[in-house]
Amino acid sequence: WDPRKRHDNKFALHYARQGMIALAFDNPARGEASSSIRGLSEVSLSAIWAGRNYLGISVFQKTQVLKWLARQDFVDSDRIATCGHSLGSDPADIVAFLNPELVSAVIHNDFCCNWRERSIAMSGYPSTPHHVVPGMFAWFDAPDIQAALAPTPLLFTEGGRTNQLERIRAAYALKGARENLKVYYYEKYATPDKRPFDGKPIPEGLTSWDEYFKYANVDAANHRFHPEHAVPWLAKVFGMKTNDELWRWKGDE
Amino acid sequence: WDPRKRHDNKFALHYARQGMIALAFDNPARGEASSSIRGLSEVSLSAIWAGRNYLGISVFQKTQVLKWLARQDFVDSDRIATCGHSLGSDPADIVAFLNPELVSAVIHNDFCCNWRERSIAMSGYPSTPHHVVPGMFAWFDAPDIQAALAPTPLLFTEGGRTNQLERIRAAYALKGARENLKVYYYEKYATPDKRPFDGKPIPEGLTSWDEYFKYANVDAANHRFHPEHAVPWLAKVFGMKTNDELWRWKGDE
Repeated sequence: WDPRKRHDNKFALHYARQGMIALAFDNPARGEASSSIRGLSEVSLSAIWAGRNYLGISVFQKTQVLKWLARQDFVDSDRIATCGHSLGSDPADIVAFLNPELVSAVIHNDFCCNWRERSIAMSGYPSTPHHVVPGMFAWFDAPDIQAALAPTPLLFTEGGRTNQLERIRAAYALKGARENLKVYYYEKYATPDKRPFDGKPIPEGLTSWDEYFKYANVDAANHRFHPEHAVPWLAKVFGMKTNDELWRWKGDE
Repeated sequence: WDPRKRHDNKFALHYARQGMIALAFDNPARGEASSSIRGLSEVSLSAIWAGRNYLGISVFQKTQVLKWLARQDFVDSDRIATCGHSLGSDPADIVAFLNPELVSAVIHNDFCCNWRERSIAMSGYPSTPHHVVPGMFAWFDAPDIQAALAPTPLLFTEGGRTNQLERIRAAYALKGARENLKVYYYEKYATPDKRPFDGKPIPEGLTSWDEYFKYANVDAANHRFHPEHAVPWLAKVFGMKTNDELWRWKGDE
């Protein structure tokens, strides 16, 4: 990680500096929960043999933490958000979806990805074992879960496939909560004129990530947590003042 | 492949030389069915997303071939065997189990492996995506399927975990068909005195394949098809004479 990524990715710290209670913890088999014997892929495959899956285990763990957190007397249980970066972004969505009485805002810090669409475009690209949910493709995909969050306030910090974001936007509109969905794209793709592939059908037969990323408005080198979007958005949702001096990257760390 | 393995692994040829009709075909995404874009692991993960699995697809394909074969007028449909080597060994068992009216003998050319036992011993070793059957561990394991084949004649050509083979033997005994199960171990482990780990509990915490293989009587360097066991056994089951001149390795190929 370069210095900026190291700074920006400390997202619990940014929220805490903003005056929020933040609880940060590792994804299963990652960070301090890593094992020197079996890595993420192997743990995930073992889980699938056993009728479970990595995402399910991740959501289960995080749900227990959420329920504990909501009972603490220093926590305002009417103002709890889930916030996930990268591998944590799908669980953030799902924990919120399954616990609507406890979660009142969601930050999805990754791009919006329809896995089936991506797999078809990318010649059967299956992602990694820790993303695989057995049988999920027969029922729904990540954007369906995100659409189902409506009208809960939802932030995307890294844009993604515009056609998928529009489906989610339509769900929020149906619930009369269009303003509760906020999308920032990567800076490189920030405005419609910078997204020439938005209206184009995504071809099949792609073999490289880079080809797909053009259609998904992904600037992989800048994949990191984005406090500049997430902290002020969440503060506004929760009726708090923000002070960007507290968490904005100043190039000096 | 060394010359001997190249010779021995041509198993359809050995059966044909022995006077049997043999139909050989590739496993999905292997051999002539390979793709230069996505390999076995990726195809298998994609299948799991879609609610399928590699072994299931393999069994489905082979079942169609079996049904076609049984209808051919040059085939004696009362004497059809399934025979699988390595990746083909589990499908050989399962195709036979699901089609008892069509399959009257099974050759499992690999060692007998209980995947759960192996995973627990080997610190969560999950095997590869093309072996994973989602949720299978909650219900049964490979030796359960093999036991369920009783009383259909069944041959193991590469031994394996003796405790598991004894469970299968007990199933055959229950069906009054003890003589229908035949087990050859690898030559290195051919007789009980050569298998010092047979009676010992398998420890947990193993990290290498070699440690596990000691307990499973596996001589991995000699993993290949074994015509010297399979062909005469099947000929005997089907009431045919054998001529080992036709298929035995003579070191001259």
